[in-house]
Amino acid sequence: MKKTYVRCVIQGRTVTGLMDEGTVYALEGCLFDDPKRGAAVGSVDQIERWLPPTDPTKVVAVGLNYRDHAEEVKLPIPSEPLIFLKPSTTVVGHGDDVLYPDMSKRVDYEAELAVVIGKRCSGVSPERALDYVLGYTCANDVTARDLQGRDGQWTRAKSFDTFCPLGPVLVTGIDASDLEVTMLHNGKVVQHSRTGQFIFPVDVLVSHISRVMTLLPGDVIITGTPSGIAPVRRGDLMEVEIENVGRLSNRIR
Amino acid sequence: MKKTYVRCVIQGRTVTGLMDEGTVYALEGCLFDDPKRGAAVGSVDQIERWLPPTDPTKVVAVGLNYRDHAEEVKLPIPSEPLIFLKPSTTVVGHGDDVLYPDMSKRVDYEAELAVVIGKRCSGVSPERALDYVLGYTCANDVTARDLQGRDGQWTRAKSFDTFCPLGPVLVTGIDASDLEVTMLHNGKVVQHSRTGQFIFPVDVLVSHISRVMTLLPGDVIITGTPSGIAPVRRGDLMEVEIENVGRLSNRIR
Repeated sequence: MKKTYVRCVIQGRTVTGLMDEGTVYALEGCLFDDPKRGAAVGSVDQIERWLPPTDPTKVVAVGLNYRDHAEEVKLPIPSEPLIFLKPSTTVVGHGDDVLYPDMSKRVDYEAELAVVIGKRCSGVSPERALDYVLGYTCANDVTARDLQGRDGQWTRAKSFDTFCPLGPVLVTGIDASDLEVTMLHNGKVVQHSRTGQFIFPVDVLVSHISRVMTLLPGDVIITGTPSGIAPVRRGDLMEVEIENVGRLSNRIR
Repeated sequence: MKKTYVRCVIQGRTVTGLMDEGTVYALEGCLFDDPKRGAAVGSVDQIERWLPPTDPTKVVAVGLNYRDHAEEVKLPIPSEPLIFLKPSTTVVGHGDDVLYPDMSKRVDYEAELAVVIGKRCSGVSPERALDYVLGYTCANDVTARDLQGRDGQWTRAKSFDTFCPLGPVLVTGIDASDLEVTMLHNGKVVQHSRTGQFIFPVDVLVSHISRVMTLLPGDVIITGTPSGIAPVRRGDLMEVEIENVGRLSNRIR
């Protein structure tokens, strides 16, 4: 059964809650341990600030993972996932500003499905991998494209503070195998594909990454971006919309 | 004044302590806030397990940073530091085993000076950078060399669990600008240089990295490795020795 969790400031309180039909309910129990619905805290309209729906120790990101994008740019289909890391200090929530770094002259959006890990996970098989997934949220893998090219290593380009908006909510109990993924740049659709185009589906990604490094509850895997990346300017609005998950909006400052 | 801090299991207790003349003392106050020496807990001989002296949210690593090594391999001196990340799940302590991953056929040691951050730090100048450094420890930036070459991105090669031994202790109040750095492979010296050979000294590294990402108390910067990298085999002993800091020993399994 689909459930929607939110971390937010509401009525002056910071809460992790369950969202249902426009109301935010407190949780009884831990997010990672099938919590029960507690008392109502307020309505969704009363949310003052959206916090990232998870507080990961690490964000593991995946390079080229959309078949249509690989074909479009005539890159060979990779034989295994190419991974890189974004530090936890990149994570911000829905509605937070993304800061344009002084060091860069070209900053791009990248719409991505984010996988949130529910249980400590090391060396799992693809067959068991989804047992370790708590749910999904939207991610924007913001990238200083000029620095990515100059450095060769992608770390600096991907690691600036605020470069990983996540949210607005965490959705559990859904099938993520063929969801529509869209980026809207100032309201215009600029990226559009489906997770059914993944070269490495979520179970394969979780399995592969867990064979390299232990994944911890709350850790995030972002699953690659479709074609259509392009630069943004200060003041622009970036919105990642994922079918059945939500729409994550952030402005660049 | 030089002080030596240790995290360890001693007399069945897990403690963060001050080491002085062979005795471990408990701390009164937080490691990051100039703690006072408390009661004696035991002697250094009674330490049952050495824990990593810090518990970083991230380990930021630096590529080519020794002038003599760059000249030896005829690489151009980089104009700015090249950074990459190792996740917190790579960190182990002195005496812990480093696990040889199934995925790799070539694993190398890399002796490095590790800088431990003492205070939250964003956008600091080189002139103020050392105010944000708590102290130093030894690091081994273990690397699956074959995967580093194959992937292009260094993340996977550097991110396996246990691939960042740190320790044995954290040393504060020392001048790290010209320390001898040595790697002993099964007792034989295989890497040997001095931090005076750094292309980017510690103050420049902290400043540069803090302009990309916020550094948090306990975070670690590892400062690059001298020439002499080579593969290890299961059962080998790797020892990183840094003048005035300590000797970090780990076996590969």
